[in-house]
Amino acid sequence: MKTYDEYLLMVNSAIQAIDYPQQPAGLYEPIAYTMALGGKRLRPVLTLMACEAMGGNPDHALNAALGIELFHNFTLLHDDVMDRADVRRGQPTVHRRWNDNVAILSGDAMLTLATQHIELVDDRHLLAAMRLFNRTAMQIYEGQQWDMDFEHRHDVTEQEYIEMIRLKTSVLLGCACRMGAILADAPQDRQQAIYDMGVAMGLAFQLQDDMLDVWGDPETFGKEVGGDIMNNKKTFLLINAQQRAQGDDALELRHWLNDPYALRDQKYPAVRAIYERLGLRQLSEQAIDHYNAQAIEALRRVGLADDAYSAFAALINRLTTRSK
Amino acid sequence: MKTYDEYLLMVNSAIQAIDYPQQPAGLYEPIAYTMALGGKRLRPVLTLMACEAMGGNPDHALNAALGIELFHNFTLLHDDVMDRADVRRGQPTVHRRWNDNVAILSGDAMLTLATQHIELVDDRHLLAAMRLFNRTAMQIYEGQQWDMDFEHRHDVTEQEYIEMIRLKTSVLLGCACRMGAILADAPQDRQQAIYDMGVAMGLAFQLQDDMLDVWGDPETFGKEVGGDIMNNKKTFLLINAQQRAQGDDALELRHWLNDPYALRDQKYPAVRAIYERLGLRQLSEQAIDHYNAQAIEALRRVGLADDAYSAFAALINRLTTRSK
Repeated sequence: MKTYDEYLLMVNSAIQAIDYPQQPAGLYEPIAYTMALGGKRLRPVLTLMACEAMGGNPDHALNAALGIELFHNFTLLHDDVMDRADVRRGQPTVHRRWNDNVAILSGDAMLTLATQHIELVDDRHLLAAMRLFNRTAMQIYEGQQWDMDFEHRHDVTEQEYIEMIRLKTSVLLGCACRMGAILADAPQDRQQAIYDMGVAMGLAFQLQDDMLDVWGDPETFGKEVGGDIMNNKKTFLLINAQQRAQGDDALELRHWLNDPYALRDQKYPAVRAIYERLGLRQLSEQAIDHYNAQAIEALRRVGLADDAYSAFAALINRLTTRSK
Repeated sequence: MKTYDEYLLMVNSAIQAIDYPQQPAGLYEPIAYTMALGGKRLRPVLTLMACEAMGGNPDHALNAALGIELFHNFTLLHDDVMDRADVRRGQPTVHRRWNDNVAILSGDAMLTLATQHIELVDDRHLLAAMRLFNRTAMQIYEGQQWDMDFEHRHDVTEQEYIEMIRLKTSVLLGCACRMGAILADAPQDRQQAIYDMGVAMGLAFQLQDDMLDVWGDPETFGKEVGGDIMNNKKTFLLINAQQRAQGDDALELRHWLNDPYALRDQKYPAVRAIYERLGLRQLSEQAIDHYNAQAIEALRRVGLADDAYSAFAALINRLTTRSK
């Protein structure tokens, strides 16, 4: 097994080597721009790791890994239009740097480009790879739709929230892992186990993300903290706060949620303090531990050699103790 | 060979039978709405016709035909967002009936749903079908990008315009024909011939569309005429008018192009009269005849039995003498 950074290097070299057509520039430049913004490249690394861990050649999984990363970046590109987000990884989003139409159309092209990369897998894996990829894509759109629906609801339960992030975020990590397993000719039960590991890892990862937005260090987090609180974003924390707050806490929380002109310097620390009084930091950490344990249980079921097992276990640990 | 209406019935029955998930409604209702708006269903009919004409079973081409129709409707859905179009086939567009975010996300889902339908072809045709479909999709995005680029240019040539509509409109007709040929196990040269027929047919079809917008009967055309003229849309007619107009005609044309407050009752007949004085109706008809002849030449190369040949020849003729 290689280290994370070695797989990352493989992924980044392959991304840099993608040969986009020159024309029309308005279509391809935003795609190249988006792919060059960087990021953890977690999903393609998972595909390469899973492939090698199960006895396959990670070089043969590189196109599928790129397809998954292209898909992930396509979802970010269109989500940024829908969320009117101005900044992504410290740079202007595509719809801000160009415009909405460019973002819509180049996003569409990225989705097809992603599928074209999946299409490059070995013939005998094509059907399984395409099915997994497209089924996962549909689940992700469903998750995004639930996320948008939740904005207008006040009765979202923790269970509904977990199902939403399972669809919106986690299944793509499961898909990335299973893709590697498919390309390594792993049997169905081992494919399923590594998929389950990816999904549980994704849930822990997203809950960690919700926490970082509240308690993260802006220096290392790489983006401003408090954004979820300022936007009344229905996270694991807000949903549980709304269900648990009593008396003054409930009144104060309602006040902040209903004040569109609240200043960040006031609202963010006040809501964070409510979360802390309600014990939500511990509750989040317990939920993260729960999904981490689930991920480890699934990882055991995969039945890997020691070095591969250790590599995944270390990654699970690293993702949920990360500060960025 | 069946009649157009018999193939159309097959397509419409299959579209009605598509079983969309119930939830989340915000994702799937706009897709069902779009697909229920109707239309000529030209592309899926071409796939079924081409398959049967080349000795295949059109039932086996039905999923791929639906995939192409889903794709076509996805492009219309996203184009309507980009063009801020309010009406499609006499009904509110998705972004008007719901909103932009719904239109973006449900369009994305339609694209993946389209790919999932292509995925259902026989295993042995999967790679060829996916390659054709995705390559065509990329060309269509390129065509849409050129179309948007042309809005800001004043030096678009007839040749550039033809290349733009080849990409934006015609290659999907070629793809629809070739998909049927692939599924009928036709050899490459016959696949290429029927593809060429579809592309030439598509060029004639789009030029006819440009003409109908100017000289069509609003009663039978199904949508208001004059829209291209009112929007200064760079069509075959406007591009040639800008190159050919001299003296008073040139001055008058420039006046109408630069008057954003011009009334439809004045601008539309005035520009139409300029087109007529410049002989552009005849020029368009000549161009249509040219691509019709190209389509017939390609159809001959396909080498079909008489009844299949006649069915396609009649369709080519019907598409470019249509009034809607």
